[in-house]
Amino acid sequence: MIKQQTLQIQTRGRGTYDISRQVERIVHESAVRNGLCHLFIQHTSASLILCENADPSVRDDLEVFMARLIPDGDPTFEHTQEGPDDMPAHLRSILTNMDLTLPISNGRCALGTWQGIFLWEHRTHPHQRQVIATIQGG
Amino acid sequence: MIKQQTLQIQTRGRGTYDISRQVERIVHESAVRNGLCHLFIQHTSASLILCENADPSVRDDLEVFMARLIPDGDPTFEHTQEGPDDMPAHLRSILTNMDLTLPISNGRCALGTWQGIFLWEHRTHPHQRQVIATIQGG
Amino acid sequence: MIKQQTLQIQTRGRGTYDISRQVERIVHESAVRNGLCHLFIQHTSASLILCENADPSVRDDLEVFMARLIPDGDPTFEHTQEGPDDMPAHLRSILTNMDLTLPISNGRCALGTWQGIFLWEHRTHPHQRQVIATIQGG
Repeated sequence: MIKQQTLQIQTRGRGTYDISRQVERIVHESAVRNGLCHLFIQHTSASLILCENADPSVRDDLEVFMARLIPDGDPTFEHTQEGPDDMPAHLRSILTNMDLTLPISNGRCALGTWQGIFLWEHRTHPHQRQVIATIQGG
Repeated sequence: MIKQQTLQIQTRGRGTYDISRQVERIVHESAVRNGLCHLFIQHTSASLILCENADPSVRDDLEVFMARLIPDGDPTFEHTQEGPDDMPAHLRSILTNMDLTLPISNGRCALGTWQGIFLWEHRTHPHQRQVIATIQGG
Repeated sequence: MIKQQTLQIQTRGRGTYDISRQVERIVHESAVRNGLCHLFIQHTSASLILCENADPSVRDDLEVFMARLIPDGDPTFEHTQEGPDDMPAHLRSILTNMDLTLPISNGRCALGTWQGIFLWEHRTHPHQRQVIATIQGG
């Protein structure tokens, strides 16, 4: 059994957005007890990650690290038509991925205690993002 | 329903190769309308990524960034028996992944407008690469 | 058909641990001939990677590279309550992922000759890690 649904996530610009609750709702509605939940973001400048969900400073540190690893406005980048965050957003997305698959056990995503599901917006301006959830199992 | 097929991709050395068309053909031939397409590269020195598919300068910038992050011939690397690009190729593959799962909707990979599927060859010399596609769904 | 099983992996602290044999045993016991094997680590400070399995210097170089990219005790990190390796462990996990999907062909994981499945422990102290394997196929 395969069910597909699209999540619309409005971001307020660069940063991490906890989408665990929306994903759990889709899994719950699917009535799948054991299986897999695949998430896919249809963009090349935002990504999906699992991250520590308790201390917000983890996600602040993520931003600081990424901004240092891939600086906005790096003069070596040629692809800059959408601004200084354009190419960095592509690179950040590729290093952290656009797909994520989670096990479903007993009708819920079998996340560890400290794991949350986050959409990571890499563009500085707000964007509307689409995430396709595909649920499989029985 | 699960169907498996192997793609043979001949690379001309380091660089990104758009394999979207080959993947779409396999999805089309499977006749799956809704499901998932899993791609797996059977190598540790090449990877699979989703990347912006319109402006080739994005992929030029990817190479420049990676060459700076993981320089060929870095003297701190011990694993150099196949040359200065040997260990960098392993590292690049691990940072960008050897597996990729895409949703299938209405008989096609549900990619975003700007998403293309690329094999990223990390060795400087040409290689024959194998990608296993596993299609699930109904 | 979907089967789920949890692997318990005891680590001796930071480093890579070959779990290929344990994964192959689960695939074998599932009796699935063709399908997929999804692996998921329920932690945010350890990850799952595919890596060259022949020369141990590859994995030594991985550690050297990561320690340089994300130094323990970096004073820019705020999230340090569990020590100098706390935030680096989260970052390493996010860059290398907590999920991995492998094709199953002819009753075995269809890995390339040089591909091994490794749990990468990013904390310096030993930890008990849980990996959920979900096997699908027929």
